[in-house]
Amino acid sequence: MTKPRFNRILLTGAAGRLGTHLRRGLAPLCTHLRVADMAEIKDIQPNEEALQFDLADMEATIRATEGVDAIVHFGGVPLERSWDSILNGNIRGSYHIYEGARKNGVARVVYSSSVHAIGYHQIEDQIDANAPHRPDGLYGLSKCFVEDLGRLYWDKFGIETVALRIFSSFPEFTDRRMLWSMLTFDDCIRLVEASLTAPRAAFSIVYGTSANRHRMVDNRLAAHIGYVPQDSTEAFRAEVEARLSPPDPHAPAVKHLGGWFVDLGHPDDEAAK
Amino acid sequence: MTKPRFNRILLTGAAGRLGTHLRRGLAPLCTHLRVADMAEIKDIQPNEEALQFDLADMEATIRATEGVDAIVHFGGVPLERSWDSILNGNIRGSYHIYEGARKNGVARVVYSSSVHAIGYHQIEDQIDANAPHRPDGLYGLSKCFVEDLGRLYWDKFGIETVALRIFSSFPEFTDRRMLWSMLTFDDCIRLVEASLTAPRAAFSIVYGTSANRHRMVDNRLAAHIGYVPQDSTEAFRAEVEARLSPPDPHAPAVKHLGGWFVDLGHPDDEAAK
Amino acid sequence: MTKPRFNRILLTGAAGRLGTHLRRGLAPLCTHLRVADMAEIKDIQPNEEALQFDLADMEATIRATEGVDAIVHFGGVPLERSWDSILNGNIRGSYHIYEGARKNGVARVVYSSSVHAIGYHQIEDQIDANAPHRPDGLYGLSKCFVEDLGRLYWDKFGIETVALRIFSSFPEFTDRRMLWSMLTFDDCIRLVEASLTAPRAAFSIVYGTSANRHRMVDNRLAAHIGYVPQDSTEAFRAEVEARLSPPDPHAPAVKHLGGWFVDLGHPDDEAAK
Amino acid sequence: MTKPRFNRILLTGAAGRLGTHLRRGLAPLCTHLRVADMAEIKDIQPNEEALQFDLADMEATIRATEGVDAIVHFGGVPLERSWDSILNGNIRGSYHIYEGARKNGVARVVYSSSVHAIGYHQIEDQIDANAPHRPDGLYGLSKCFVEDLGRLYWDKFGIETVALRIFSSFPEFTDRRMLWSMLTFDDCIRLVEASLTAPRAAFSIVYGTSANRHRMVDNRLAAHIGYVPQDSTEAFRAEVEARLSPPDPHAPAVKHLGGWFVDLGHPDDEAAK
Amino acid sequence: MTKPRFNRILLTGAAGRLGTHLRRGLAPLCTHLRVADMAEIKDIQPNEEALQFDLADMEATIRATEGVDAIVHFGGVPLERSWDSILNGNIRGSYHIYEGARKNGVARVVYSSSVHAIGYHQIEDQIDANAPHRPDGLYGLSKCFVEDLGRLYWDKFGIETVALRIFSSFPEFTDRRMLWSMLTFDDCIRLVEASLTAPRAAFSIVYGTSANRHRMVDNRLAAHIGYVPQDSTEAFRAEVEARLSPPDPHAPAVKHLGGWFVDLGHPDDEAAK
Amino acid sequence: MTKPRFNRILLTGAAGRLGTHLRRGLAPLCTHLRVADMAEIKDIQPNEEALQFDLADMEATIRATEGVDAIVHFGGVPLERSWDSILNGNIRGSYHIYEGARKNGVARVVYSSSVHAIGYHQIEDQIDANAPHRPDGLYGLSKCFVEDLGRLYWDKFGIETVALRIFSSFPEFTDRRMLWSMLTFDDCIRLVEASLTAPRAAFSIVYGTSANRHRMVDNRLAAHIGYVPQDSTEAFRAEVEARLSPPDPHAPAVKHLGGWFVDLGHPDDEAAK
Repeated sequence: MTKPRFNRILLTGAAGRLGTHLRRGLAPLCTHLRVADMAEIKDIQPNEEALQFDLADMEATIRATEGVDAIVHFGGVPLERSWDSILNGNIRGSYHIYEGARKNGVARVVYSSSVHAIGYHQIEDQIDANAPHRPDGLYGLSKCFVEDLGRLYWDKFGIETVALRIFSSFPEFTDRRMLWSMLTFDDCIRLVEASLTAPRAAFSIVYGTSANRHRMVDNRLAAHIGYVPQDSTEAFRAEVEARLSPPDPHAPAVKHLGGWFVDLGHPDDEAAK
Repeated sequence: MTKPRFNRILLTGAAGRLGTHLRRGLAPLCTHLRVADMAEIKDIQPNEEALQFDLADMEATIRATEGVDAIVHFGGVPLERSWDSILNGNIRGSYHIYEGARKNGVARVVYSSSVHAIGYHQIEDQIDANAPHRPDGLYGLSKCFVEDLGRLYWDKFGIETVALRIFSSFPEFTDRRMLWSMLTFDDCIRLVEASLTAPRAAFSIVYGTSANRHRMVDNRLAAHIGYVPQDSTEAFRAEVEARLSPPDPHAPAVKHLGGWFVDLGHPDDEAAK
Repeated sequence: MTKPRFNRILLTGAAGRLGTHLRRGLAPLCTHLRVADMAEIKDIQPNEEALQFDLADMEATIRATEGVDAIVHFGGVPLERSWDSILNGNIRGSYHIYEGARKNGVARVVYSSSVHAIGYHQIEDQIDANAPHRPDGLYGLSKCFVEDLGRLYWDKFGIETVALRIFSSFPEFTDRRMLWSMLTFDDCIRLVEASLTAPRAAFSIVYGTSANRHRMVDNRLAAHIGYVPQDSTEAFRAEVEARLSPPDPHAPAVKHLGGWFVDLGHPDDEAAK
Repeated sequence: MTKPRFNRILLTGAAGRLGTHLRRGLAPLCTHLRVADMAEIKDIQPNEEALQFDLADMEATIRATEGVDAIVHFGGVPLERSWDSILNGNIRGSYHIYEGARKNGVARVVYSSSVHAIGYHQIEDQIDANAPHRPDGLYGLSKCFVEDLGRLYWDKFGIETVALRIFSSFPEFTDRRMLWSMLTFDDCIRLVEASLTAPRAAFSIVYGTSANRHRMVDNRLAAHIGYVPQDSTEAFRAEVEARLSPPDPHAPAVKHLGGWFVDLGHPDDEAAK
Repeated sequence: MTKPRFNRILLTGAAGRLGTHLRRGLAPLCTHLRVADMAEIKDIQPNEEALQFDLADMEATIRATEGVDAIVHFGGVPLERSWDSILNGNIRGSYHIYEGARKNGVARVVYSSSVHAIGYHQIEDQIDANAPHRPDGLYGLSKCFVEDLGRLYWDKFGIETVALRIFSSFPEFTDRRMLWSMLTFDDCIRLVEASLTAPRAAFSIVYGTSANRHRMVDNRLAAHIGYVPQDSTEAFRAEVEARLSPPDPHAPAVKHLGGWFVDLGHPDDEAAK
Repeated sequence: MTKPRFNRILLTGAAGRLGTHLRRGLAPLCTHLRVADMAEIKDIQPNEEALQFDLADMEATIRATEGVDAIVHFGGVPLERSWDSILNGNIRGSYHIYEGARKNGVARVVYSSSVHAIGYHQIEDQIDANAPHRPDGLYGLSKCFVEDLGRLYWDKFGIETVALRIFSSFPEFTDRRMLWSMLTFDDCIRLVEASLTAPRAAFSIVYGTSANRHRMVDNRLAAHIGYVPQDSTEAFRAEVEARLSPPDPHAPAVKHLGGWFVDLGHPDDEAAK
């Protein structure tokens, strides 16, 4: 039997929706999987080391990166929230992760960026990974920040990053848009594995969807990462289209890559209501 | 059983070569298929409403668009002809179609544009949908006009268009070029269906060939339409190559996307002969 | 004294606003200036041959191109009008001009296209001459048609065209937009002269403004035409800004290159009111 | 005498190097100039309203934007500093400025971004404004963040931003690089004025140097802002070249746009020394 | 049974590694296969005509192209060698081949260019066939020369060339890089066959690898050649990764397309050691 | 008085047309000017060291580069000639120059490449420095070779090159094309000086014409070299146009950048006549 590629991987956000699936997916890749979250992580496996801390805690975060070969950074606030939450969880938290990587000599970070970093681009523009950032909210703005942070830590400190611009990765279809935006959990695992094992990542951006029929972005510039999705939403089309109403092609949420995020107001206003 | 996506679709050119196949292909997509042509349409089916009129007749054309959800506009002059025919059948006729769409609130038009709208580009340039128009005759010029018309009606009136730049869609191979340019009738149906049902079309241009071995244009910018050809000409290669003489790579008709159309003189001169 | 470059130039639209200035500007370039318009042309000069006819009259138009070295085609409907006017004056009329050029061996056509051929592009996109057509009305649509016609007659019949996408060429500033869009009459003459005398035009598109401070399009691809504007609107800025209200950057007419044309409804609806 | 274009402009960083010059430059453009800084501002003029506060103070910052037509945001940390300083002064501080603009209906922000947002691009790549961010330190990273923030507030809330990627704006030449990177104080004023008064800014990025002989970036995409530098460093070349040693073309600081910033280590490490 | 496409093909380098496989692959395509090499060729088949000569011998080389329909030019020095070897074998030798093609009316040349013609480009740049040359040694420099020679003989003399930028085509994996760079012998045959039979080649460049998981270059611009690889290295991944050490993503040989060629010094220095 | 920038510059081709002017132009830039040619150089100045040798002589060429800070390499065959002349004078000769630079630690080479390296591109394509090579003869092919050689010596050995694609630099106008292609001798000196003194050259390509009215190529990518032409051909236009017949825009020599070189046959055929 082959030795796993990595000795120890740190997975942040391990208690979250994707984190749970990644625990399963990363297991064969490393001898030790260090799983971290702010929330308690259930069902710790023999290969796992569990840590519970807030990413806003710089010291704890840096400590979590000790002895680690690679970081799969899926932690932080997972959707539009107040500025304070995003500042602490995503901006400060990710800075702490990269500082940990730098101080502890971690070679590569795989980061869960998001379609919301470029959510105000239009579908028919078929953008590629070099298109300028156009975040669709504070959440997306924090994703842009971490992408630029990753770029800096590559250019200046030689730490590689693969930024995954994940579209939608959910257990159910709640919107027809998911027929094109869905990344199945299994393809998500394939995407992270490809990002961890690509021979050279430098700083790369990969769009993350399954091999769905409608492709709204151009993944050409990530071909060196070797991500090959195996799933498609076509099998669910009939059921989803029967259940959910069709999109209005004039609606901002249909026009823009970011979907309904572009319809949201400012999260602090929402909170104040 | 699922209700068809559309209540009523208007198909123009329904008596033509492709129209006949589209009648079959569109049937499952709509409750009522309104089929129109200048010529008499044979074998009207129970789901069909037949109309016979000239597209140059503005009033009749607009009337034909009443109560319609989408238009599949394959009518008009199908190849190089006199200026008068092209002006009336394609330029004026298509204007009437779009005016009908505007007056009657039709949401989307799928238009049979043609390779001849860009026929003077060269094969090895591998153009995409943003390349400037280079028509190879009056027929191609009228296709350029209707593409621009569709763009205007999208930008100004919010009517979506998918312009299909069809290469060759014929029952037989009469030229080796068809080995790369052929769009099978079944793929033509797939292409129209994808164009009708794509979640957002805005104004989009799709190149229409089957999944043939040699690809002379780049369809990257139409990935949001979700057209996935299923056929290929490879099965016919041996027979066709045995029967038809090989292309001369220096011939203008081989160099340019438009094929033998670039060899044609002015149609009015031809007529005068 | 040098012999003029051309023996005979045909100027259409010679009674119009720009036509009047071009009569003066073209005089030194040719021995005979054939001036044509639908309206009567006043003050015929000794070097001028005047013709009065409708461009929709094919026979008269073709006859007007006999014995001509070059055509400066500024005739036709000069702004948004009914479909019938545009169809006859611009689409059919320009086709007649090109047929005349073809039948009578005219080497080059300089055509007054318009910003309205690309009026729905946005200012900050800084488009160049290869951007796809995006007309902002029927007038602009006819300009797109004639550009494509010129391209065809170059590719197929070897007749050169310089299409001038003129922004605004008026005697007075009636809109702050003119501070960037204005082409002075003298620069218009320089533009036409450059287009007539460039060593090779092939089919080229030039954006036509003076050397104004704000440049909203990129003229890089026309550098071989050698147009060097000498005027600028800066001297008029203080007066114009004092007199006319500032633009609202969110208004469609400020966002798009086409200005207030994008606010117009369909001309046939307007006429019907 | 003409009324100034603006009633009230807020200038942040007014006590800084560039702020002092901008006070003079902005005076003719507005009736009231609100000058703000963390430090005390000297020699308050009759047209000026002085405010002293820390940008990290959200409430004070938002209050400073009340009643303001436009913001010239030059405040914050002006060079590489500790993460905490940059986080508070530039990231949090600029967020407060944009929140003020949103809550108080300010139409446009002119922001002093920096070459350090793209400092890891190479000189011979001649990048334009669409090149991806490549910050050369935490300072540059904060500039990237504010650019993306400006983009979001334009796309979502309709507030325009002109982001000025200023290269070097200093009173003296301390490095030969300044012969190409210098923006004179007078050109800096011209650049800010152009950015405030351009008819439409949307979200635009302008590279800020004087009209120096060597141009290391391509400002083509900002032509609609109408910035026309009047100064050049050529008059200083002989003196500077005699005084300062020539660049080594292989040195990272010469290869990259960011100059010696690319040689800096992590600021928190430096501080710890 | 169909007559072969070609009467006589000349294969140079027929005794070499790839040449041996191509003898087998080309046999069905031609009636006569003229096999040439500097070394003796073994096991001459009934359909083969064997010639032994040095490509540096102009007269012999030109004579070898007599009566030939197409040339598959795989001869010359196959890797980094002294300047004299490369000058004679690749630069002068290939010039002789093209002169033979010109004098004897050969219609098409298929040339074994190499990744080493663009070896200094970086993997994550995902270059296409229009990227500028960046050779990684004298060998690559000679490949650039022959590509330009092919371009000239197409533009000026109408001889078509398909330049194959082959990555690695070896019987064994001696480097993990081969997992992405390998072109199997069968795919090499497919590539040459496609290049010989494409309806129009003009001057085209094709990247030559199998359908491996990681794609480091963009073959989009060669779609008209119709090369469809059938093999992949995935089946060998486990064995190769277990046997060979992982790449260091910071190593020049991993960063650049050319692999370990970028680590080589000057071949004449090496020879002198 | 300032010390010259360079201690010793080697100028090859010093007895040639441009070499003679460059001797005058380079004098102020260096303490010692080493002038070299195959022919005898007249009127040796006190600051000059004269060498006479054939570039095909490797040993002599390498010796000529000893003790040199920069090389201005204008030697070799200056126009279309036999393959043997071009091979020896340009290909082998330039290789010897670069080997000299490598062995003797010369930092930068300024090379007289030529429009003929890209002579088969068309005027209206407005190519920039990244366009693929399209030589128009053996002379142009050798220029392509030396450009690639310079690229290699930069990428592998760190020697900078500025390749000057000079159009026409002659004392008289013998063709109307020179009105756009001319580089005056004074501008040629400015171009070489800029290339020698640019702060960073890496490997750069500059198009070399004066500031003529018609610009057929795009020099945007060389802005970091700081070449600012001061001359123009406009003052000569009237005289030249009166004397020389106008271009035929359909002629290959007018269509392509290379001018009449594209009309030449193979030089060895010509020689054989």
